[in-house]
Amino acid sequence: MFQSIDTHDKSLTERVCEQIVRLIQESELCAGDKLPNEFDLAHRLNVGRGTVRESVKLLVSRNILEIRRGKGTYVSEHTGVYEDPLGLAFFQDKYKLACDLQEIRFMLEPDIAAVAACSATVADIAEMRRLCAIIEEMAPRGENYQDFDVQLHTCIAKSTKNLVIPNIIPIIHQGIFIFIDLSQRSYWQETIRNHREVVNAIERHDADAAARFMTCHLMDNREGLNRIAQSMQNNAPLRVNPSE
Amino acid sequence: MFQSIDTHDKSLTERVCEQIVRLIQESELCAGDKLPNEFDLAHRLNVGRGTVRESVKLLVSRNILEIRRGKGTYVSEHTGVYEDPLGLAFFQDKYKLACDLQEIRFMLEPDIAAVAACSATVADIAEMRRLCAIIEEMAPRGENYQDFDVQLHTCIAKSTKNLVIPNIIPIIHQGIFIFIDLSQRSYWQETIRNHREVVNAIERHDADAAARFMTCHLMDNREGLNRIAQSMQNNAPLRVNPSE
Repeated sequence: MFQSIDTHDKSLTERVCEQIVRLIQESELCAGDKLPNEFDLAHRLNVGRGTVRESVKLLVSRNILEIRRGKGTYVSEHTGVYEDPLGLAFFQDKYKLACDLQEIRFMLEPDIAAVAACSATVADIAEMRRLCAIIEEMAPRGENYQDFDVQLHTCIAKSTKNLVIPNIIPIIHQGIFIFIDLSQRSYWQETIRNHREVVNAIERHDADAAARFMTCHLMDNREGLNRIAQSMQNNAPLRVNPSE
Repeated sequence: MFQSIDTHDKSLTERVCEQIVRLIQESELCAGDKLPNEFDLAHRLNVGRGTVRESVKLLVSRNILEIRRGKGTYVSEHTGVYEDPLGLAFFQDKYKLACDLQEIRFMLEPDIAAVAACSATVADIAEMRRLCAIIEEMAPRGENYQDFDVQLHTCIAKSTKNLVIPNIIPIIHQGIFIFIDLSQRSYWQETIRNHREVVNAIERHDADAAARFMTCHLMDNREGLNRIAQSMQNNAPLRVNPSE
């Protein structure tokens, strides 16, 4: 399975990384599975243990492996998904970034809700209701329900059974939250109502209604962004998505 | 600007990484800008040069920095955007992955074409025409025009002026191409016609037509995927996107 390392284009560490990734793929190792130990890897790859150690470090930084102290090296939970995969932290204009991310939500989330209405299972819907209930408890108390909001939208994304969409949604949401503090939002009543309407529509397999309620929800969110924009005295108009 | 490193939660290397990222953000350094030298960084952060070197290596692996031999360390071109940011290489069922990515294209690209029809500049449209012309020359000769296809769709995405969308499109496209070889495609005539219709609609600012022609284009692409699926004797039906 391994190719012994002896040709030289990339750095040795980088090539050992590639071999370890191949091992994970070809052995169909999954999140939480254990890797062979350092000694074994060094032997099979025909390199020193120091090189293996350095490669493992790199793969940890790429969220492909994780080290559990005293236990060994494991395949990471969200294998290869980075904390900030689109490099959002490097955009200079945070308000424009939040608006652009919101625009992507308008493109994706109504369609996601519609697909979810076709494919969500009873268990998916129970999980959506659980998350709605938590938000409904926290919001009137003025608690910050941001994380559960992301979880609800990710749960809807997962229920499409599309493998990639649930990886994209949290990235987009966190991108908005990191830079714009929505915790002071005053429109929580609308949020609660819209969440319920979306989940109800998904439950009765009404794709059209699910998409439309999701659009309403996003319109309210955008109004929140606009209010923040005004309070920042930055009156750049938000672009209206033509699909609405 | 820097915080001297002396508290200990994360590894020292990781904390030095964070400080360097802060430096990039706060000095508003852009792609291609040069970083202070190793000696200077080590002095300012109050750590050894070995630690700085290790941190720089990590940031290179995260595509935040790049080392130019004999010249120094620079901010990388696509700062912080990873080669495979969604960990697509780790999905086991490559055919399902390609279908799921195609489903995301159905959600995003008609809307993108519509926004582009509102915001594309004369220069954007000239670039689209240039890429169309290259594809029209290559395709009848049986040459693989995949890269130019991605460039055209990315160019349309860029012309929306949304900062994030142009980072997402190539990831989705490459994900499909890496695992499904579309170079043998027989439907290049449809591709050429659809590309032209999309660009024509964008040029005359007809958002509706741009979205609809993009949908036609994606339908043809999906038919291509279906044909490949059949030749793989894998007859799992492709899910139809409800927004069509």
